[in-house]
Formats: sequence, C-alpha cells, structure tokens
Amino acid sequence: MSEAALIRAITARAAVRPGVRLGIGDDAAVLDGDPAIVLAHDMLVQDVHFRLGTAAPWDIGWKSLAVNLSDLAAMGAAPVAALVGLGLPRGVAPAVVDALYDGMETLAAEWGCTIAGGDTTAAAELVVGVTAVGRMAPGIAAVERSGARPGDLLCVTGPVGASGAGLHVLESPSLPLPAPLRDAVVAAHLRPRPRVAEGIALAAAGAHAMLDCSDGLAIDASRLAEASGLRVVLELERVPLGPGVAEVAAALGRPADELAATGGEDYELIVAVPAGMRVPGCALIPVGRCEAGPPGLLVERHGVPVVLTRMGWDHDVG
Amino acid sequence: MSEAALIRAITARAAVRPGVRLGIGDDAAVLDGDPAIVLAHDMLVQDVHFRLGTAAPWDIGWKSLAVNLSDLAAMGAAPVAALVGLGLPRGVAPAVVDALYDGMETLAAEWGCTIAGGDTTAAAELVVGVTAVGRMAPGIAAVERSGARPGDLLCVTGPVGASGAGLHVLESPSLPLPAPLRDAVVAAHLRPRPRVAEGIALAAAGAHAMLDCSDGLAIDASRLAEASGLRVVLELERVPLGPGVAEVAAALGRPADELAATGGEDYELIVAVPAGMRVPGCALIPVGRCEAGPPGLLVERHGVPVVLTRMGWDHDVG
Repeated sequence: MSEAALIRAITARAAVRPGVRLGIGDDAAVLDGDPAIVLAHDMLVQDVHFRLGTAAPWDIGWKSLAVNLSDLAAMGAAPVAALVGLGLPRGVAPAVVDALYDGMETLAAEWGCTIAGGDTTAAAELVVGVTAVGRMAPGIAAVERSGARPGDLLCVTGPVGASGAGLHVLESPSLPLPAPLRDAVVAAHLRPRPRVAEGIALAAAGAHAMLDCSDGLAIDASRLAEASGLRVVLELERVPLGPGVAEVAAALGRPADELAATGGEDYELIVAVPAGMRVPGCALIPVGRCEAGPPGLLVERHGVPVVLTRMGWDHDVG
Repeated sequence: MSEAALIRAITARAAVRPGVRLGIGDDAAVLDGDPAIVLAHDMLVQDVHFRLGTAAPWDIGWKSLAVNLSDLAAMGAAPVAALVGLGLPRGVAPAVVDALYDGMETLAAEWGCTIAGGDTTAAAELVVGVTAVGRMAPGIAAVERSGARPGDLLCVTGPVGASGAGLHVLESPSLPLPAPLRDAVVAAHLRPRPRVAEGIALAAAGAHAMLDCSDGLAIDASRLAEASGLRVVLELERVPLGPGVAEVAAALGRPADELAATGGEDYELIVAVPAGMRVPGCALIPVGRCEAGPPGLLVERHGVPVVLTRMGWDHDVG
C-alpha cells in the first residue's frame, strides 16, 4: 500500500466538519476565520527520512521544523507555533536531545515561531513529529494547489536538485566531487531553507496555486495539475539547477535536468501564476505552463516529450 | 533522564514569541486572539503506551485522539481539528490502518472534530502522534493549571482508578475477577471518554485551575499544586472509585484508594474551584483542598498523612 493510496483511503473517510475550511489533501489544513489558521504535520523517522550516521542531531531538528514551515509557506501562512512529538530510543544521550532542539529553536527564532508544546516518549528509534501552526495575513486566503488556470505559468522560487544530489553524495560517499560542491549539496539536503517570505508574498500577490517541492518537481507538479484539473507541461530545459547538481548528475551518468526534476526535498515553492506577474522580493523562475487538457503532467525537453525513469518520492508504508 | 527532566530542559530553551499566550508546561498551548486557539500533542508508541496483543487497532485510534481531546478539555476548549502522524511498520495490513482511523473518526464525529491532515510514514513500530486543535468560546480564557487559590476545593469530574485497574488486568490476565468487571475496567483503559463538555462548562463557570488526570490523580494534583504555588491536600477517603477498582485492588492486595489515586489514564478533569461552585451538567466530586503552604502535595486518609509507594506515571525516555 503506497503512502498515496493510504492518504486517499483516509481522505475518503474523514469528514470535513464546521470550523474547517480545507481538510486533508493540500500542503496544510485551513480553519475558518480571518485571519485564517493554517496547520501542517510531518513526521520524520530514523532510517526512513534520515540516518544518524550522516545527519547530525542539530540538522535533524532543523529539518523537521523546516519541512513543516515549508508546508505553511506553500499556503502563504506566517509561522506562529510548533508542537513537537519526540520518540527517543532508550539510552539516547541528553546532548542529542539538546542539539536537536537547538536546531529546531534556531530556525524557529528566524521566523518568530514558538515551540509551544508537544510530547516526549520512549520509542524503538528516533521519531520527530512536528506540527506547525501558521496564520494568514488578514483578508488573504490560503493558496491551494487546485487553483491553477490554463494560461498560467508554472514557476519555482529557486534552483532545484541540490538536495537530491546531496542525498546521493551521503549514500555514496565515493562519488568523485570537489569538497566545496559536496558541502553545498549536503547542506541543501540536511538544512533546507523554507521559503516562508516568498510564500507570504505570493499569497498576498494573488498566486493561483501553490505547493512545496518536497517529493520532487515532477511529481509535485503533477499533483498541482491533477488538483487543478488541467495539464501541466514541465519544460526540462528551463529547470534551474542548484549548485553541484550538474556535477553529481555527471558522476551518476544521468541527465542533470532529470536529476533536478526528480530529486526531491528542495523545499522551493512551485507556483502557478498569471503570465507577467511580478512579486517583489520573490524569484519566479518559469519552468512550464498550464494548459486546458486531461489532468496530469507532460514532461518535455525543447518541445520533445520525455519519459522520466522515476518521478520522485512516495515513501512506501505497506 | 526522566520525561519530566527532559521537558524542563526543553522548556528552559524554548522562547515564547509574539502570537503565543501560553507555551510549554500546561496540558495545551494557547495562541493570542479571541476566541483563543488551543493546541495539544500526544504521541502513542507501540509497547510503550499500548500492546498490539491487548489493544485492537480501533481502540488505539480512539485512545490516541481521546488523550488529546482530554488535553483540550483541560483548558476548556472545544475540539475543531486533529492532525495525525502515523508511523507504520512494514507489512501492516490495510485493515489495521482502516480500523485505527475508524476509531479516531468515531470519536471525532462525536465532538464535531475534523481529521484535517497529517502524515504517514514507514516506521519500526506503530507510532500515532495526534495534534488536536481547539477553540475557546468567545471571551472565555483558557483555564491554566496555575490558578488555584488557598481555600479552593480540589475536585474530579468522575470516579478514577478503573483505567489503571484495567491495565493490571491486561498485563495479568490471571487476576481473579468476574467477567463484567473485567470488561468494565478494560474498556476504561482502552476507550477513555474525554470530558470535553465538562471542560467547556468549567471554563465558562470560572474554574480557577484545571488539568486532566492522565498520569494519576496524585501526581497530577501535585503538578497543579506546584504550578499554583500552594499546598494541595488529597483526602484519599473521598476519592471516588471507578467500577472494578475495589475488586482489582483486593486481588492485588493493595488499598483501593491508593490504586485509584495512582493508576493513571483516567482522563477525568482535576479542577480547583471556589467552595460552593456548582456547574450545571458537570459532576464536581471533592477529593481535597488547596491551602497556603510550601508548594506540593500532601496525601491524607481521614486526616492521617499517607506516603504513597508510587505516585503515578512518568514515561522514562532515557
């Protein structure tokens, strides 16, 4: 049973009741009210999302909050609070817990977010579940992934692929790569920067549809396409490559644009905007277009259809 | 490192920033605003909080939401939404996940709560992290555990001890006990009923301090005492015994009032109220009194001090 199939099964059962504007199925849930409250939860598990051999506790703390702030950003919400559920293997050193919270608190401080509660418990492995709570600006609606319109440009807020390249480097340390590039891609993987300011600005500017690039540009763009009921054409030659992506792709013998489009965990925002939209302080790099047509993703390179060997990540839970 | 010590270490680090009225340290966090948003998170882990051999998946789902709704109730908030982080061992049957969500959704429906989002991931063992989001009634402040005053009565909203007795029965199936009592205490342990309506009524009535009885009446009353900076005297002879508690205590050879005061997971509310307060629709059973004095708990039976052999639960994570 894939994670996607499970989520579909759960979605079918969970009724949306009064007080909730948007339930399961987007980057985050949205409550009724103005300013609207936005809620996201992601759980990171040892040996599924990180390895203790390659990720420092500080990095695990940072990233576990970052992926949740990214979900808030994908709706256009400003972070307010986070709750932390921590499962700790027996015998874990207090210094590990300290460092983990240090990483989380450092990122929280950057965005004025309060670690406001949570739970700690024994567990067989390190589990970090974070719930992030955000607020929209008054009068501004959360940006769902379903609002793209034919004629919109598909844009990203920055280069992609470096995080996926970093994962390859961590898993295959023998890949030949200069140390500065190695450091850059590993940092992109371990300490992603959520695009909070960009998300807030894009919501205020009236972006049509938005989600964050967590599982890979291609698979996430296909989700925007399906939710919006239109065709998204991803133009591989326009995908901006993060630093080191070309070099890691060459070492792996794979096309760099494909690595960038499928690597995952970039945490840039993917956004559908009307052509010509400018948003002060926010990079908007066109990587494709939205068209009327059967819902789904078409991948092209210079106008020629491309079949990707893999689309991205869908953590299997079955 | 005990859970309590860890939480203290974390509390010391986490800054409370604008937008948050109450951070770590109570049953739930409270955001600024009116009506105020209330946030709770509890994580249940296989073989720490439940065993798959004795708890059905439906029960695990029910209880994982119930303990969080109980935290909202302890502030006086009405449930609005819940987010669910689910860690699933490989090979788990889809029917298990279905039943788990069924239990959760059944309780959510009772209180008009929406399961609005979350995350599923692979994990070594079953992990259920639930975040519950509630709202206070307009103009009503969340009831903290720190507001008790000398002269207040300490009350519970119902009998205690049945859940702890149920755990003894599940862990020691050979305990001699009639089947109806066995079923009653096991049900109290596996499917607790959060006192949501009582919590809302108590907040509206102006209760001084409140928390839920999750780790045991004695240890939770001591937390209220310490947070409020006064002495709480727990009068064991007044503690109302849940059904089956006397019989399980007899089978264990322990005083029933002690079993009831230390069993844990009752999820009744413990509340400090001015003497004479009546709250329509809410049982208020006096079990003790609040006095000026060094902060802490004094346990008495008919006026004679009693030293409890254990206070309750504090899940060790070190």
